[in-house]
Amino acid sequence: MTAVNSRPAVLTAPAGLRPRVDDALPHRLRRSAEQTGHGHMMRTEDFPPWFADRARAHRFRVDRIPFADLDGWSFAPGTGDLVHRTGRFFSVEGLSVTLGEGLIRNWEQPIIRQPEVGILGILVKEFDGVLHFLLQAKMEPGNPNRLQLSPTVQATRSNYTGVHRGAGVRYLEHFAGAGRGRVLTDVLQSEHGSWFYRKSNRNMLVEAVGEVVPHEDFCWLTLGQIGELLRLDNVVNMDARTVIACLPMAVPESGALHTDAELRSWFTVERSRWNAVAERRPLAGIAGWERGAWSIHRPDGRYFRVVAVAVEASSREVPSWSQPLIEPTGKGVTAFLVRNIGGVPHLLVQAKPEAGFLDTVELAPTVQCDPANWLHLPAQHRPPFLDLVLAAPPERIRYAATHSEEGGRFLNAENRYLLVDVTADEVGAQPPPGFQWATAGQLGDLAGHGHYLNVQARTLLSCVNAGAVRLS
Amino acid sequence: MTAVNSRPAVLTAPAGLRPRVDDALPHRLRRSAEQTGHGHMMRTEDFPPWFADRARAHRFRVDRIPFADLDGWSFAPGTGDLVHRTGRFFSVEGLSVTLGEGLIRNWEQPIIRQPEVGILGILVKEFDGVLHFLLQAKMEPGNPNRLQLSPTVQATRSNYTGVHRGAGVRYLEHFAGAGRGRVLTDVLQSEHGSWFYRKSNRNMLVEAVGEVVPHEDFCWLTLGQIGELLRLDNVVNMDARTVIACLPMAVPESGALHTDAELRSWFTVERSRWNAVAERRPLAGIAGWERGAWSIHRPDGRYFRVVAVAVEASSREVPSWSQPLIEPTGKGVTAFLVRNIGGVPHLLVQAKPEAGFLDTVELAPTVQCDPANWLHLPAQHRPPFLDLVLAAPPERIRYAATHSEEGGRFLNAENRYLLVDVTADEVGAQPPPGFQWATAGQLGDLAGHGHYLNVQARTLLSCVNAGAVRLS
Repeated sequence: MTAVNSRPAVLTAPAGLRPRVDDALPHRLRRSAEQTGHGHMMRTEDFPPWFADRARAHRFRVDRIPFADLDGWSFAPGTGDLVHRTGRFFSVEGLSVTLGEGLIRNWEQPIIRQPEVGILGILVKEFDGVLHFLLQAKMEPGNPNRLQLSPTVQATRSNYTGVHRGAGVRYLEHFAGAGRGRVLTDVLQSEHGSWFYRKSNRNMLVEAVGEVVPHEDFCWLTLGQIGELLRLDNVVNMDARTVIACLPMAVPESGALHTDAELRSWFTVERSRWNAVAERRPLAGIAGWERGAWSIHRPDGRYFRVVAVAVEASSREVPSWSQPLIEPTGKGVTAFLVRNIGGVPHLLVQAKPEAGFLDTVELAPTVQCDPANWLHLPAQHRPPFLDLVLAAPPERIRYAATHSEEGGRFLNAENRYLLVDVTADEVGAQPPPGFQWATAGQLGDLAGHGHYLNVQARTLLSCVNAGAVRLS
Repeated sequence: MTAVNSRPAVLTAPAGLRPRVDDALPHRLRRSAEQTGHGHMMRTEDFPPWFADRARAHRFRVDRIPFADLDGWSFAPGTGDLVHRTGRFFSVEGLSVTLGEGLIRNWEQPIIRQPEVGILGILVKEFDGVLHFLLQAKMEPGNPNRLQLSPTVQATRSNYTGVHRGAGVRYLEHFAGAGRGRVLTDVLQSEHGSWFYRKSNRNMLVEAVGEVVPHEDFCWLTLGQIGELLRLDNVVNMDARTVIACLPMAVPESGALHTDAELRSWFTVERSRWNAVAERRPLAGIAGWERGAWSIHRPDGRYFRVVAVAVEASSREVPSWSQPLIEPTGKGVTAFLVRNIGGVPHLLVQAKPEAGFLDTVELAPTVQCDPANWLHLPAQHRPPFLDLVLAAPPERIRYAATHSEEGGRFLNAENRYLLVDVTADEVGAQPPPGFQWATAGQLGDLAGHGHYLNVQARTLLSCVNAGAVRLS
């Protein structure tokens, strides 16, 4: 292997060996995060016109259609599952869930099943001594504003094995195969446990080796520029956010309320105690849901609907298609409470069970819900800290922006993401069961492994990593 | 607790905070591993008579019985699953497995289902400045020699919630509840994926706070003393071995063939590529198996049998009981190939799918099989490196001992565990697909998280951690 050129760290280790950890990388990422005003390709203030230009360059039309008008999709005889004729892409099936504790312990629901593992990959390259991230202006049918910034590569296995029978995925060669670049991060992370059955994707950061051929829909941005864009609503898509959450950032912290061992032990206890059982069921006849011509929904109007859309696009691998999407019935609130403890900011994490998780719970933000789903319940049964977040005065709000979830599967799935300061009087050192204080550095280390942080927690962590919010 | 004494690092962090990582612990563990000849309680050479004395002190009798003689267990109407009348403990059910690749891609098998998470916990305490581990001389019905050294606490949730209606679990208060000790390690690890459906247990190391009341079946040993005992056959049980594998040892290594990021990326690819599907089935009628009065087995005599035993014991929570066990049909071979690369020993790990794993593959030893199951196949279809291990001359064998697997569920499940030296000519820097070189330090770090290393790999890592084998 002639690896020496692309892997300079080789020189400090014995012949044939390399240092296990690239100590320079966290500092290179930090330097990139600190550069907010301009990058190699554009000033940050020039991004909006560039983005508007990309939006004009592409036709994109999304229409709701009845299920009967779906092309290639149908309800399977017997099960009633919503499936594609190829058996690929994904399916909408039923799930029966039982929890050992909690207010709501049994329910059934539709859920997306897509067993294959995709790649969410961002290519980075140094320009003028600073790492730049290659992001794509990409249309997705479920995005409220259609066009958002996505990772360099956002590919299902169907994409790159050609089931779409469309064009190849641009820049994929940097992420897979013998000639790929230098892998900095590559970790399997869960996606939305409430809507996906055990779905995970590879979150990859790859440093380019050699030249990268430019394409007009892509732009090089520093991490700090991405941080600036993360302060805007619906610009940086979920797939880009989750990759950024997995970066090994340098986080200077003098200590933490709990040692890493204690934090992991708390998580182990939480993961052990739930006795969650999720069992697949035929979509036809799941309790509490009904199927109409245009949607599968609950008569009480809560949670979400399964709907269908027809799409026409000029910039996608396939120019037109139709597909099912999950459409939440309201806008969610997703917030971390933040407290300075001993001079170090701590985030209040929640060990949250979600129906589709591979393993019972993952760490979620303090609050993660659609408030409308809880209005019918007495106050003491509403999610802890929800009222505190909803009532937070502006000076307590360190960060607030609306981001939407994956537009390839979810329609107008918007969440208000917040970081809200609290005092020791409001939340002490020993929060209620299921909650715990952790530093950004601790969460960052956990994000280097799969199935610790859920995708909503990763969105908020990406805002910290990219400098969209300063915690201290 | 006089916290300052037991947590000296406290003094270097701001008020209210502690250092995230206990930097002293790896060195304290290493010091304990280096003390091999004697401990606070006994010289290592005095262990065999102490152990023989414990064996004499307890009546223990295990008899094979037909299923019809099981007390409290029966085949459920309809499914044919072997279940307990309380619905607790565990059940033997069916599993249908499909792999996307490999020689054998479809099969059905019986499997143990036990959704609850147990505790495997070792209590440690410093005597004369050296950490000692509190192990228990404990009988298990499936152990070939009945008595082995187990962790301080080896408790299913049924144990400590009282389903056994027996005596309380000794020393459990150090591991659970408000007064527990200082948690050093607490991680959910998988158990045997071929025999257990998604089973995991908490692997805990806890430092005692205050006095520990001695009991005659327990002994304090240094990690080095345990290492000496790991060179003997069937003395240190699987539950003790897996906890020791999870210790954060200080491993001085100057580098590795692959960076940690590359190793994890390789693992991510392996975990993504298998498309493994395991679906629960009623035990009655699974293909390839038949049920007799005394066992559920395959007509070809391969893999394992489900059998039943009656147990009489004087030293257990319950003095007599009967239960099913899984009995492998032969003795396994479980080996890491070892190579010195650039002055640092590397182990050849295998990304191995097992039917019951939560997530497709975990890292296994280079060879892990019962050779008898493969004799009927042509040489090119036998497991890679098996012949190399079986033919290894004595001077190549760094470590060899027979250990048995969990005696509470498996009957006479013995494996020959080996570490075998190979040369660069035999296995180069780029091993076959599914195999990769990793250092002990890299595997040790992965063992700090769940579902990376399988239980057989952890047994061999425990031998490294405790100094039963010196790699360099």
